[in-house]
Amino acid sequence: RKIEEFMKKHGLEVGDLIRVIKRDGDELLTFEGLVMPPYELSPGETLTIKLDNGYNIGILIDAIERVEVLENAAEKPKMTFQEVLPRKEGLPNVTILGTGGTIASRIDYKTGAVHPAFTAEELAKAVPEIFEMANVTPKLIMNILSEDMKPEYWKRIAHEVAKALNSGEDGVIIAHGTDTMGYTASALSFMLRNLTKPVVLVGAQRSSDRPSSDSAMNLTCAVKMATSDVAEVMVVMHGETSDTYCLAHRGTKVRKMHTSRRDAFRSINDIPIAKVWKDRIELLRDDYRRRSEGEVEVDDRIEEKVAILKIYPGISGEILDFLVDKGYRGVVIEGTGLGHVPQDFIPHVERAVEEGVAVCVTSQCLYGRVNLNVYSNGRKLLKAGAIPCEDMLPETAYVKLMWVLGHTDDLEEVRKMMLTNYAGEITPYTRFDTFLR
Amino acid sequence: RKIEEFMKKHGLEVGDLIRVIKRDGDELLTFEGLVMPPYELSPGETLTIKLDNGYNIGILIDAIERVEVLENAAEKPKMTFQEVLPRKEGLPNVTILGTGGTIASRIDYKTGAVHPAFTAEELAKAVPEIFEMANVTPKLIMNILSEDMKPEYWKRIAHEVAKALNSGEDGVIIAHGTDTMGYTASALSFMLRNLTKPVVLVGAQRSSDRPSSDSAMNLTCAVKMATSDVAEVMVVMHGETSDTYCLAHRGTKVRKMHTSRRDAFRSINDIPIAKVWKDRIELLRDDYRRRSEGEVEVDDRIEEKVAILKIYPGISGEILDFLVDKGYRGVVIEGTGLGHVPQDFIPHVERAVEEGVAVCVTSQCLYGRVNLNVYSNGRKLLKAGAIPCEDMLPETAYVKLMWVLGHTDDLEEVRKMMLTNYAGEITPYTRFDTFLR
Ligand SMILES: N[C@@H](CC(=O)O)C(=O)O
Ligand SMILES: N[C@@H](CC(=O)O)C(=O)O
Repeated sequence: RKIEEFMKKHGLEVGDLIRVIKRDGDELLTFEGLVMPPYELSPGETLTIKLDNGYNIGILIDAIERVEVLENAAEKPKMTFQEVLPRKEGLPNVTILGTGGTIASRIDYKTGAVHPAFTAEELAKAVPEIFEMANVTPKLIMNILSEDMKPEYWKRIAHEVAKALNSGEDGVIIAHGTDTMGYTASALSFMLRNLTKPVVLVGAQRSSDRPSSDSAMNLTCAVKMATSDVAEVMVVMHGETSDTYCLAHRGTKVRKMHTSRRDAFRSINDIPIAKVWKDRIELLRDDYRRRSEGEVEVDDRIEEKVAILKIYPGISGEILDFLVDKGYRGVVIEGTGLGHVPQDFIPHVERAVEEGVAVCVTSQCLYGRVNLNVYSNGRKLLKAGAIPCEDMLPETAYVKLMWVLGHTDDLEEVRKMMLTNYAGEITPYTRFDTFLR
Repeated sequence: RKIEEFMKKHGLEVGDLIRVIKRDGDELLTFEGLVMPPYELSPGETLTIKLDNGYNIGILIDAIERVEVLENAAEKPKMTFQEVLPRKEGLPNVTILGTGGTIASRIDYKTGAVHPAFTAEELAKAVPEIFEMANVTPKLIMNILSEDMKPEYWKRIAHEVAKALNSGEDGVIIAHGTDTMGYTASALSFMLRNLTKPVVLVGAQRSSDRPSSDSAMNLTCAVKMATSDVAEVMVVMHGETSDTYCLAHRGTKVRKMHTSRRDAFRSINDIPIAKVWKDRIELLRDDYRRRSEGEVEVDDRIEEKVAILKIYPGISGEILDFLVDKGYRGVVIEGTGLGHVPQDFIPHVERAVEEGVAVCVTSQCLYGRVNLNVYSNGRKLLKAGAIPCEDMLPETAYVKLMWVLGHTDDLEEVRKMMLTNYAGEITPYTRFDTFLR
């Protein structure tokens, strides 16, 4: 087929980064991307390249004016396992736990899809800068896309973190898929008690073998925070689309707010802990936990029979009934506005509470704080026994409720614990400088 | 009790807007708010006022230095029914349909809660400016808090809108609670076909009898848009916290993003249609439907057995199974990231599709666009028959799916219709200037 000839003639290999100049009437258009394998079933008249935005385009071979190879697939850094480097005196020690996700992925050139593939070692080796900053010990503990993350895996991660910190590491980094990174960050925030050192989750929105990958900078900033004075669970990701700085978000207040932007992660109802620049950490607040001495403890008792239920016009109470009948111990409601549900939904909440199910209320607005005292419907919901979760994110309230129900099923105790601030999940007062930031 | 004496001595009435100066050690603190009735069961040592942010505070009477009445409850504009004013020649004609919500509410001074109370007439009379701008005909069609809005009420509103427009009104305004205003706006966007005139939803975050109420400005801007050239369904609400301008959002792209801020409403993945200033409309785009001639049609066929299901780590496929077993015809999934679900959830999607249930995929990130082609899990979900909903909001996809299923239950037809742009619900390409705006 034409395509094979064309590739041969220009010396193109699948995976090469190329620039293609194409004629379009009077104009010349330029595209840059990775050469994809010719589809076997296609007539073979087009060259397919994967653009930096992740999309594939097919370019008619007859319209191609010129092709330049920008980076040869064969010359790309080989991400194979090497011996762990000898520890350097005077550098802090950081363990990177690999769990999978884009940050540890590469494109499968056969399907064009992204698969988790790199081990933590390979990842670390791909960003050699970090070995100048710390003695980095990579360790792959699982290799999944984070949409497959499960509450039981949170426990495993928590234990790995504690093990590393309690055996003398100065900080731990967890390389994680971005999809559910916020949930895992919340879970670790509750499970790691008496935290005395930094725990940093980091991911990437573009896979490591794409020219615009954000993994190198995110990882470098993660090492900075992992060796800092902030002894909290944090998420470190790009703060802007360009490579200016990363943000270190508190693990209980952070959320993925965009499907694909590099700066998708945002602190909701709170300001981040720090801006992480190439050469320094700019702390944005001083009410953070400081690094100190002492053993980190893992309190991983959770109740998994918990669900999130979003409210919408027309929702039927039968869905809540079903959860109660199925033995769920807790439900986090994503109410409308200040935390409302339709009036005809309230008897179902009442029944759930009567059966000992904890019903917590958050808002689908995401920003702001629930307040069930303003409207009559809110008061009725309170009277039915619902627990209003202040300004907590629905996702954080979900994880927290699992953790709280792992400790008690006395509903009064559940209420007390849900309203106790364990890991910065509740901002005591509403901040007006945090909306859509 | 002390409190009764104190109120008598200072001539305070329940509902007065007052300023209280209180001693606090060496400092003097100032509070402004509405006098609340003394609680019968309290010892009567404190004066309770409702602050502008909606919270009540109790101030120890002994610490009060001074009290000033800023506005007498008795002197507040009486919002009682008056005759509809005679129509003025040359002014456009606008009908305001009242449905309830804060914009038509007042505080119940007995409980401190907000109740829907004003009729559309009272509301209109409370903002006399609008009678200079248009011949306003108010009509109360229901009086509910919008958390109680139901799909069948959407139909009623759609028919009332069409009736008004087809009998010569130049535009229609719907006064609506803010909680579910986005859902109703979407529903009207799909149900009102061949729309030739503006339809504007408007609400308020602060009730009309609070000094900082946003209802007057929102309503004034709503009248501006209702008499404009934009023949679309729009939401008009504050654009900033101060009274600078309102934004006119496209009905299918708008979402309440904050529980309480006046500028809570935001266009997601798209820019608003216009800024509405006190003296002019500043159009932000020109790809809007223009005012024209012709009868508006109502196509209100919807299928109500549709649900929204948010994905989270640990979600069990049994919830989707339950919906299928209960005869639901469609489910909108709020996936993680680009639109993912856990791998072990996919067989449940497959089963749903096999039983003829339409499964649509949106993202809980809210911003961005789903793309099931990037990761292997996404491809599997596609293969299972899921319909990826581009950059549609989950709430809009929910309303749209109800409407689409009202027209067909052939899954191929459903897919085609879900991916057809009926009312601006799909932005053809991802805009980078719309994130967190
Ligand atoms: N779907 C991937 C995306 C990523 O890694 O960013 C995951 O969350 O694992
Ligand atoms: N809960 C009220 C709030 C409001 O009107 O703004 C409603 O949506 O009806």
